[in-house]
Amino acid sequence: MAGTYSDPRDRSFIADGNAKLLKDVEADYAALGAILSRRGVDIDAVTATVASFGVAIPSWGVGTGGTRFARFPGIGEPRNVFEKLEDCGVIHSLTGATPTVSLHLPWDHTDDVPALRQRATALGLGFDAVNSNTFQDRPGQKLSYKFGSLTHTDAAVRAQAVEHNIDCIRIGQLLGSKALTVWIGDGANFPGQQHLGRAFERYLESTRQIYAALPADWRMLIEHKMYEPAFYATVIQDWGSSLLAAQTLGPKAFCLVDLGHHAPNVNIEMIVSRLVHARRLGGFHFNDSKYGDDDLDTGSIDPYRLFLVFNELVDAQWRQAPDFQPAHMLDQSHNVTDPIESLMTSAIELQRAYAQALLVDRQVLADYQQQNDALMAAQTLKRAFTTDVQPILARARLQKGAAIDPVAAYRRSNYRLECANKRPASQSFGGGIV
Amino acid sequence: MAGTYSDPRDRSFIADGNAKLLKDVEADYAALGAILSRRGVDIDAVTATVASFGVAIPSWGVGTGGTRFARFPGIGEPRNVFEKLEDCGVIHSLTGATPTVSLHLPWDHTDDVPALRQRATALGLGFDAVNSNTFQDRPGQKLSYKFGSLTHTDAAVRAQAVEHNIDCIRIGQLLGSKALTVWIGDGANFPGQQHLGRAFERYLESTRQIYAALPADWRMLIEHKMYEPAFYATVIQDWGSSLLAAQTLGPKAFCLVDLGHHAPNVNIEMIVSRLVHARRLGGFHFNDSKYGDDDLDTGSIDPYRLFLVFNELVDAQWRQAPDFQPAHMLDQSHNVTDPIESLMTSAIELQRAYAQALLVDRQVLADYQQQNDALMAAQTLKRAFTTDVQPILARARLQKGAAIDPVAAYRRSNYRLECANKRPASQSFGGGIV
Amino acid sequence: MAGTYSDPRDRSFIADGNAKLLKDVEADYAALGAILSRRGVDIDAVTATVASFGVAIPSWGVGTGGTRFARFPGIGEPRNVFEKLEDCGVIHSLTGATPTVSLHLPWDHTDDVPALRQRATALGLGFDAVNSNTFQDRPGQKLSYKFGSLTHTDAAVRAQAVEHNIDCIRIGQLLGSKALTVWIGDGANFPGQQHLGRAFERYLESTRQIYAALPADWRMLIEHKMYEPAFYATVIQDWGSSLLAAQTLGPKAFCLVDLGHHAPNVNIEMIVSRLVHARRLGGFHFNDSKYGDDDLDTGSIDPYRLFLVFNELVDAQWRQAPDFQPAHMLDQSHNVTDPIESLMTSAIELQRAYAQALLVDRQVLADYQQQNDALMAAQTLKRAFTTDVQPILARARLQKGAAIDPVAAYRRSNYRLECANKRPASQSFGGGIV
Amino acid sequence: MAGTYSDPRDRSFIADGNAKLLKDVEADYAALGAILSRRGVDIDAVTATVASFGVAIPSWGVGTGGTRFARFPGIGEPRNVFEKLEDCGVIHSLTGATPTVSLHLPWDHTDDVPALRQRATALGLGFDAVNSNTFQDRPGQKLSYKFGSLTHTDAAVRAQAVEHNIDCIRIGQLLGSKALTVWIGDGANFPGQQHLGRAFERYLESTRQIYAALPADWRMLIEHKMYEPAFYATVIQDWGSSLLAAQTLGPKAFCLVDLGHHAPNVNIEMIVSRLVHARRLGGFHFNDSKYGDDDLDTGSIDPYRLFLVFNELVDAQWRQAPDFQPAHMLDQSHNVTDPIESLMTSAIELQRAYAQALLVDRQVLADYQQQNDALMAAQTLKRAFTTDVQPILARARLQKGAAIDPVAAYRRSNYRLECANKRPASQSFGGGIV
Repeated sequence: MAGTYSDPRDRSFIADGNAKLLKDVEADYAALGAILSRRGVDIDAVTATVASFGVAIPSWGVGTGGTRFARFPGIGEPRNVFEKLEDCGVIHSLTGATPTVSLHLPWDHTDDVPALRQRATALGLGFDAVNSNTFQDRPGQKLSYKFGSLTHTDAAVRAQAVEHNIDCIRIGQLLGSKALTVWIGDGANFPGQQHLGRAFERYLESTRQIYAALPADWRMLIEHKMYEPAFYATVIQDWGSSLLAAQTLGPKAFCLVDLGHHAPNVNIEMIVSRLVHARRLGGFHFNDSKYGDDDLDTGSIDPYRLFLVFNELVDAQWRQAPDFQPAHMLDQSHNVTDPIESLMTSAIELQRAYAQALLVDRQVLADYQQQNDALMAAQTLKRAFTTDVQPILARARLQKGAAIDPVAAYRRSNYRLECANKRPASQSFGGGIV
Repeated sequence: MAGTYSDPRDRSFIADGNAKLLKDVEADYAALGAILSRRGVDIDAVTATVASFGVAIPSWGVGTGGTRFARFPGIGEPRNVFEKLEDCGVIHSLTGATPTVSLHLPWDHTDDVPALRQRATALGLGFDAVNSNTFQDRPGQKLSYKFGSLTHTDAAVRAQAVEHNIDCIRIGQLLGSKALTVWIGDGANFPGQQHLGRAFERYLESTRQIYAALPADWRMLIEHKMYEPAFYATVIQDWGSSLLAAQTLGPKAFCLVDLGHHAPNVNIEMIVSRLVHARRLGGFHFNDSKYGDDDLDTGSIDPYRLFLVFNELVDAQWRQAPDFQPAHMLDQSHNVTDPIESLMTSAIELQRAYAQALLVDRQVLADYQQQNDALMAAQTLKRAFTTDVQPILARARLQKGAAIDPVAAYRRSNYRLECANKRPASQSFGGGIV
Repeated sequence: MAGTYSDPRDRSFIADGNAKLLKDVEADYAALGAILSRRGVDIDAVTATVASFGVAIPSWGVGTGGTRFARFPGIGEPRNVFEKLEDCGVIHSLTGATPTVSLHLPWDHTDDVPALRQRATALGLGFDAVNSNTFQDRPGQKLSYKFGSLTHTDAAVRAQAVEHNIDCIRIGQLLGSKALTVWIGDGANFPGQQHLGRAFERYLESTRQIYAALPADWRMLIEHKMYEPAFYATVIQDWGSSLLAAQTLGPKAFCLVDLGHHAPNVNIEMIVSRLVHARRLGGFHFNDSKYGDDDLDTGSIDPYRLFLVFNELVDAQWRQAPDFQPAHMLDQSHNVTDPIESLMTSAIELQRAYAQALLVDRQVLADYQQQNDALMAAQTLKRAFTTDVQPILARARLQKGAAIDPVAAYRRSNYRLECANKRPASQSFGGGIV
Repeated sequence: MAGTYSDPRDRSFIADGNAKLLKDVEADYAALGAILSRRGVDIDAVTATVASFGVAIPSWGVGTGGTRFARFPGIGEPRNVFEKLEDCGVIHSLTGATPTVSLHLPWDHTDDVPALRQRATALGLGFDAVNSNTFQDRPGQKLSYKFGSLTHTDAAVRAQAVEHNIDCIRIGQLLGSKALTVWIGDGANFPGQQHLGRAFERYLESTRQIYAALPADWRMLIEHKMYEPAFYATVIQDWGSSLLAAQTLGPKAFCLVDLGHHAPNVNIEMIVSRLVHARRLGGFHFNDSKYGDDDLDTGSIDPYRLFLVFNELVDAQWRQAPDFQPAHMLDQSHNVTDPIESLMTSAIELQRAYAQALLVDRQVLADYQQQNDALMAAQTLKRAFTTDVQPILARARLQKGAAIDPVAAYRRSNYRLECANKRPASQSFGGGIV
């Protein structure tokens, strides 16, 4: 009956929904298994590997995003970090693919951090990298970041920004995080506004202080971005600058690749490969884009590009690349969809790309590459990509007690309507889009 | 003395400031006159033409802009359309180059339109094109534009958006405007979200109704934009779609070119030329950009591109192109500067490009073109561009009673501080960025 | 035995190769049929529609391409149009998907046109659009195209270029073609080199003469391109200019879309939709690209974009769009592969995208669109795209007597080695890349 | 009299031409001197610094370039390296700005290297960096570079390419060069064709051998490029990869920045600044571009961008950045102009940008930057840029015995016609475009 709420995290609710789909999933899985078997691939091994894949949900992603022109809120949006956590729990229960959450401070500030950790544990969730925020001013903030934060010309502003990052580490430690992601919007809108070289020197000076505060088992993830909010020059504008910074800081500093932060036409999988080579690939902010940092749902615009990125990741695993342990995080802005639905399908798109990449016969590929048989090398990748791995993804979810069709289950649960009742509309909920 | 306020619109205040600079301006003007005379150019004629140039100030431009990440307000920002008008008056008094204002509704709503017109007249200002806004929801709005306005799948939403546009025309008539600018953010963030063809058909159906409400002496200006806020597809995404729409609507429909609304690398002056050919060039939203719709200050990033646009405009005048009467409007987002300063220097940059373009010997250029002397043709443009026309611009201002150095005069007046006192800070002032 | 030549066009040679694969194809086809049946799709109907799809092979595509830096010829390259035809015959025999050839003049000049047509008929081939070439000078050519052809400032050069196009029509008539494709490289490398408006006027003047020579049942296909060989401005640089020209010329003039001729990030399926709306979509030059006019193999870089283009085409068929009869042609440069292999796999990629687009439930999609259910609308397209249609493609080939695995069959035939023996290396074979 | 040849390198020929222009140059110089004096700038000091600026002519630049579609040769093109040297001598005589030549091997192969050096000395020319070429096959070459050179999967091909580079060093030593520029086209046209990581490892392995052969006082300049001739992935695709390579090789390895080798919208001056910071800025290949690696004349498309690059260079000098000694080289393709004219004007454009950058008051700029006065900081750069430095450039040439108006002098000399007589047309002259 429309409107009746069922807890989407309830195991039996999920199992009930799965029951009707079970027969088809088994049939499709068997048919695909036969096809893969002919190619020498053990489908169960692939399923098991895919099932082990997890990606972190960005806490800011469960709210509706927006643009500088407008934000059109949805109903039942979470109003604080605890409510965000509940939504993340729903996503993980239904997909089995999102065991961690990535927080953003001070957006996710709470006076009771231990309670937050406790609630997460109860929901089966852990915490991935903590994100600092020095690209916005907050009420009561002493100094403004209008003209920069870690690179500001005023040492007092830099100190404030450094202190905030160190706070983030402290809170992250309480939560069990092991990484700090640093993205700044610092840059210039005009030629001349900023001394390009000195701004970078100030960046290094500030981040050195943050780096010094890192616990022994933590990583610092440096996120670059070509432009926006700065529209002429950005201090950490590309992977080259990110790498220079990481090299300067030390072995715990790594580069984070957001798929939407590059110049048009750039070959992102090449950047991934170079960072693997440099032993500095720290992780990803996954999303998709057509124009700029569009923060669209992962795999929605160019799924083959996503596959090619995963092809590099699987290859690095295969080659046992040193210092290779990238963090997987989503970073999207959901402007026209229910964020929970977008995050569920995005996590699944990552698994899809991963499954496809696992199907590549790397020895065969290597042989074609060695012989410069460009056509068959390309076909080898394409054949893996065009394989319909849906049955593998469904089976992996099934094995973990998650939903075969997460979106259908979610809709059937009426979770959003329940939230709309519990969480009165809040126009003032900040955009919070990275 | 720092902090003492002088009215920057005061003629004698301006004259006092000019007095000190007069001698140098005269000397520089004479020296440039001699150089131009050698090239067969009458400097006074150029000065007179430049002095006749005017560009409309966007009412939303006098507030501080922002990005989806943050808006860092300045001090003394205008809180309503009357205060915006005051700021526009300052800009025009000091530059003599901005005789009109372009309003944006409902941002600039007032219950007393005649009073607004009266105040404008007192400030020496008129009204250029009125802009409708159906890309945001406003408190109390009946239906949401979350999924589109003029192209929404729901006829009731389309009707609401049409009605708003017709309202804009009514208000514009009261103000003496002669054009309606229609920009919509309608589009899609996902492949499949929107039927690309049907959305365009709905656009035409809606705009036909608006067009039917246009007074006889009005124009409808259709503004295209490649992306943002929609990140996969935008209904009026390029000049081709804009042209198709204008052709469908009728002879009062024209295409508006915003310099930042194109794909990377696109040759904008070519689009200007094509629209002149098609007799559909309606006007400009001037600004500059490096990446996307950055809305940076005009001429701040690629001044040669701006010159090449003006080169087409001067050429069209020279050839007496039919139906050629483009509107000139600024459309910028001032995130890190005092908006009044940015708008003044931007108006001057337009005059600079215009003056440079007027220096091109079109007959000589035509001869080089006819002979395919690419090098000398190119040099002909470059020589005009590299000529320092500062003395012409200063003299043109002087002749009109404006300031030789508008930014210096403005700063000396302490107008901003005066505003800060009179206009208490308003955090909630909407971004309002187009 | 390696080196033994078998005629790849031989029916029994093909059948022998297919025999070993037959059982698997049938099993996979049955499995897919069951899956599609659950979605309400009749697999045999899809297979029949896919089997009816044909794309023209560009005669210049069977030779190895190159860049301005170098061309690395392959072995056994065709030395004249008759040998090119033989290669096209192999492609069609093995794929059953390329029933026509598109010639390029004067590259494909022969003194015996009737013999060419006769040989084509014998090979089961017809002729699609004829391409004129006024972007190169040929030995013995009276006037040079260095500074343009149809838009040259010298009327005599324009007349020569017009005459060549009319010659192409004459030859095309002898071959049974029904369309002339006009692509020119005319433009400028320097601002000022060319009067942008006058060049377009000369283009219209010249093409009017060509248009006047079109037989009643012919079409003129206008191909635009953003840049290259001209690097500052190109006369027909985008679909807007192409449309303006087509509108000026008359109802037999249509716009041709080459997938690689757009600005970065441009939404090509939107352009397709607009041209369908304007009743001016003439056809395609299919290929793929990452940076510019890379002319890579169709579907090799962004297969989802290709699918989205076909989604528009299938939709236009479904809606019975008027004047909708687009020509399908490949236009690629094969620099590192055997051109025959690339053309075969590219034709198959087109069929793949077509098959996937046919799987979209258009009524379901339309409903999601009407309800602004962006997520499910997007998923509807994605589900069609992620379906592995390989069995449909194999079965379609099988039904037509073509090879289940065309590349394997081709390699087994040793056709290339046979050619290498029969066709001594020719370093001077022109690049011939469009 | 038309057609009469005068040697453009003749001092008195030049002086005769200058005589007529002398009075105006002096007047303009005095007027500009007065303006600059008011700004606290000593014009003579600027002139002296500009006069000391030199840029290397690329030997391949004096021939007409082309695209993959066509090359339209000019008349009187040089047929060998000695004739190229003559043309370079003309350029230097008339501009006084191009004291060196950069050779490309094996294009510029000669059996008598000492004679070449002797002739250069006679012409007042030296030799800048030597360029190796492993992106083309040459008649008689043992192994092909079709699938790569320094990164080829076959060790024998790599060895051949390494050997060629070492040969270049040997020849360069004989000529007095002090640097080797290594640009390779190695990459892939298809995803999968090349293992991205292994190709880079092979690059490092090969370049290590070249590096080991560098004389103590030599530099190795690594040139990156985003794409072309490879259209999917390029081994050294951006400055990040270039930097990684330089760091791996050692302190004599530097990064070379070609202005046209970047992704769209990239901030090139930022890259310059980062390479200065990393102490790895090796030098430049100057040109201009609108779309890709267009190789247009320097400063012809975006002169402000060129100024901003020089702004970084002057700033680095001012700050006495360590290891800062960048090589200046032109690298252009002259398809529609007389190469000598293009090279002369391009050298002058570099001087123009340099002169403008020298006018920036760096202390004033630094103060505005410190205060975050974005508007005045931007205006400070713009004011320098809009200053017409023509008189400085003319005076600098005059002081060195070069021509006030080099193009006019060159045309008056009829040098090109003289060459046309002396050098019969050679259709087979290789494009030779980098």
